Amino acid sequence: MNPEIIEQAREKNPLIHHIMNQVVKNFVANGVLAFGASPIMASEKEEAEEMAQASDCVLLNIGTLTKDEIEAMIIAGKTANKHHIPLVIDPVGVAATPFRSKTIKYVLEQVQPTVIKGNAGEIAHLVDVPWKVKGVDSIGSGNVEEIAAKAAKKYNTSIVITGKTDIICTGNRVIQNTTGHPFLTQVTGGGCLLGSIVGACLTTDNPIEEQLVTAVTFYGLAAEHAASQRDVKGPGTFLSHFVDALSYPFVTLKG
Amino acid sequence: MNPEIIEQAREKNPLIHHIMNQVVKNFVANGVLAFGASPIMASEKEEAEEMAQASDCVLLNIGTLTKDEIEAMIIAGKTANKHHIPLVIDPVGVAATPFRSKTIKYVLEQVQPTVIKGNAGEIAHLVDVPWKVKGVDSIGSGNVEEIAAKAAKKYNTSIVITGKTDIICTGNRVIQNTTGHPFLTQVTGGGCLLGSIVGACLTTDNPIEEQLVTAVTFYGLAAEHAASQRDVKGPGTFLSHFVDALSYPFVTLKG
Amino acid sequence: MNPEIIEQAREKNPLIHHIMNQVVKNFVANGVLAFGASPIMASEKEEAEEMAQASDCVLLNIGTLTKDEIEAMIIAGKTANKHHIPLVIDPVGVAATPFRSKTIKYVLEQVQPTVIKGNAGEIAHLVDVPWKVKGVDSIGSGNVEEIAAKAAKKYNTSIVITGKTDIICTGNRVIQNTTGHPFLTQVTGGGCLLGSIVGACLTTDNPIEEQLVTAVTFYGLAAEHAASQRDVKGPGTFLSHFVDALSYPFVTLKG
Repeated sequence: MNPEIIEQAREKNPLIHHIMNQVVKNFVANGVLAFGASPIMASEKEEAEEMAQASDCVLLNIGTLTKDEIEAMIIAGKTANKHHIPLVIDPVGVAATPFRSKTIKYVLEQVQPTVIKGNAGEIAHLVDVPWKVKGVDSIGSGNVEEIAAKAAKKYNTSIVITGKTDIICTGNRVIQNTTGHPFLTQVTGGGCLLGSIVGACLTTDNPIEEQLVTAVTFYGLAAEHAASQRDVKGPGTFLSHFVDALSYPFVTLKG
Repeated sequence: MNPEIIEQAREKNPLIHHIMNQVVKNFVANGVLAFGASPIMASEKEEAEEMAQASDCVLLNIGTLTKDEIEAMIIAGKTANKHHIPLVIDPVGVAATPFRSKTIKYVLEQVQPTVIKGNAGEIAHLVDVPWKVKGVDSIGSGNVEEIAAKAAKKYNTSIVITGKTDIICTGNRVIQNTTGHPFLTQVTGGGCLLGSIVGACLTTDNPIEEQLVTAVTFYGLAAEHAASQRDVKGPGTFLSHFVDALSYPFVTLKG
Repeated sequence: MNPEIIEQAREKNPLIHHIMNQVVKNFVANGVLAFGASPIMASEKEEAEEMAQASDCVLLNIGTLTKDEIEAMIIAGKTANKHHIPLVIDPVGVAATPFRSKTIKYVLEQVQPTVIKGNAGEIAHLVDVPWKVKGVDSIGSGNVEEIAAKAAKKYNTSIVITGKTDIICTGNRVIQNTTGHPFLTQVTGGGCLLGSIVGACLTTDNPIEEQLVTAVTFYGLAAEHAASQRDVKGPGTFLSHFVDALSYPFVTLKG
């Protein structure tokens, strides 16, 4: 990883426009602010183009997708593509219902993501590999690297698969990351917020492989740092300290 | 109460589908995760049937009801009934406006709840007993046990009425619970999240009376435990510690 | 400032109806409860009139405005006006898109706010003064007092402009406040929640100038107090302690 990417992202203080899962809007906005970027969240299609155009990165998350949001997602995504703004797509729970599955297919036909980030069950679904899921959680097992490579090829994009070991695939290479902490799975939005941190790093001027590895490594280190605090005694106290840790310099987390 | 119900619920890690109040989605999802169940929240009617059918419990909460959500609630509720999935209804602020009152009446005509959980003002409204309310809060007084028994009979369901003393009525019997802490009334969603914990306990294989008493007692003990922590100095720090406490074994809370 | 206003507001425990930004509903509701007022949040137009009429104050915040909410805002605002209920308007990100700008213009043509609260960029936009903004943040500079006075005159209302130095303008006079802490800008909703605390103070029986100065001063002192706690090591831990501090007596914060 390249710690300078974190510093560069913070210096830029990028505006990240989210069409985001209702459950986690507050947590994600706080995490983005703590990290040193600026969140905006709006899902009204009437302003989707202006919001996307004014942003340094656009993130589309279907965690609580409604029919009304689909058009806003298409507009925001197309605007990002048109203006060469990085676009992150998070297909939350895509395997859970035909509605989500069809919507993601429809969105991916019309916009070109820079990165698709999801858990193994979500990315497997995108490449028609059978995988066990439970609601929005992935509980199956299989060859995750292969799935990442398949998805990267099929969608001509980079892939981040979160899990105990995270997989980053930029098409050329598959890289593993093992930073992180189980508490991240006990806090709602633990995966969603990573999409925003990835998005912030995409706004710097570096190779995408380095950007993704840096974002994912940093995020996991922040979780490890928070979990190691004496005051942390469960997922509730972890959450506060994790948001704190996202604001720290890399060297503090590295310890 | 029966502490084994808590362990059984955690072992099952039930998927609880929520059509939930926007104000508290984040807090409730975190509380459900901490407890050891899996939350899903989605209010789009297009996927209401699949989401409900895939779940171990369905919870309908009208705290920020919109017209669009009503049909999704009916579909999710009917699906739960059809597949014998426990259904919890939380009539938040039902007495506050005719819109809420009519909607709940309409919902209860079409779906059969396993449990209705609310404060005294809400349950009183469901059985046409005058009761003083303020917004979504109950500030009246009266015979709460009688109201619970009336509602249980009228709707052929079990009733949980939250308050300084909680009332549990399964039709056959009325039981009181006195665990809890005033901080729960200073945290938004303090009542809503109990609905989810009740729902998690309903997915075990035990008599409903034991399930309800266990859920309500455990929830109150978690609040007491959190409030007693040295670091807790108000409702903000309470919240983090309460989420922590929901993840603890019963014996830790009983302490 | 007049600390008795805080006590009077708490004694009244005013019901504050919010049509509120989705990102911050949970945080704002918790802050309002901690302070000692009662939040209600509902954006369905079917119940907008009853909700507003039952309330002691109405607050309209366009942070995540959707077309569906506009009519509810108009109804709630007109109801507040008709019944002489204080009305606070928070034009979040009004300069970011034509959709927001047109909506606020439309709302302000039909309802009369008691107070408009915003950052400098937002209030500057309302009086057609050029100002640099970034998403929903104000990053420009200029004569903020002049802007406040212009806006107070144009809309025949009181103005609160938040910033490193807050500006309060009641039409007759412009007052500065310097309490506060930078952490407030790193927590999403740090500005939004102030609108609710202002609203709570507006429900007491005091000159509006005193109400506004008291609300803004108290809010900043609560932030300073929280930031000074030994356990606070970043914006995440600050948040919990800030909510705690909002529940404290004035003398504790003044310390």
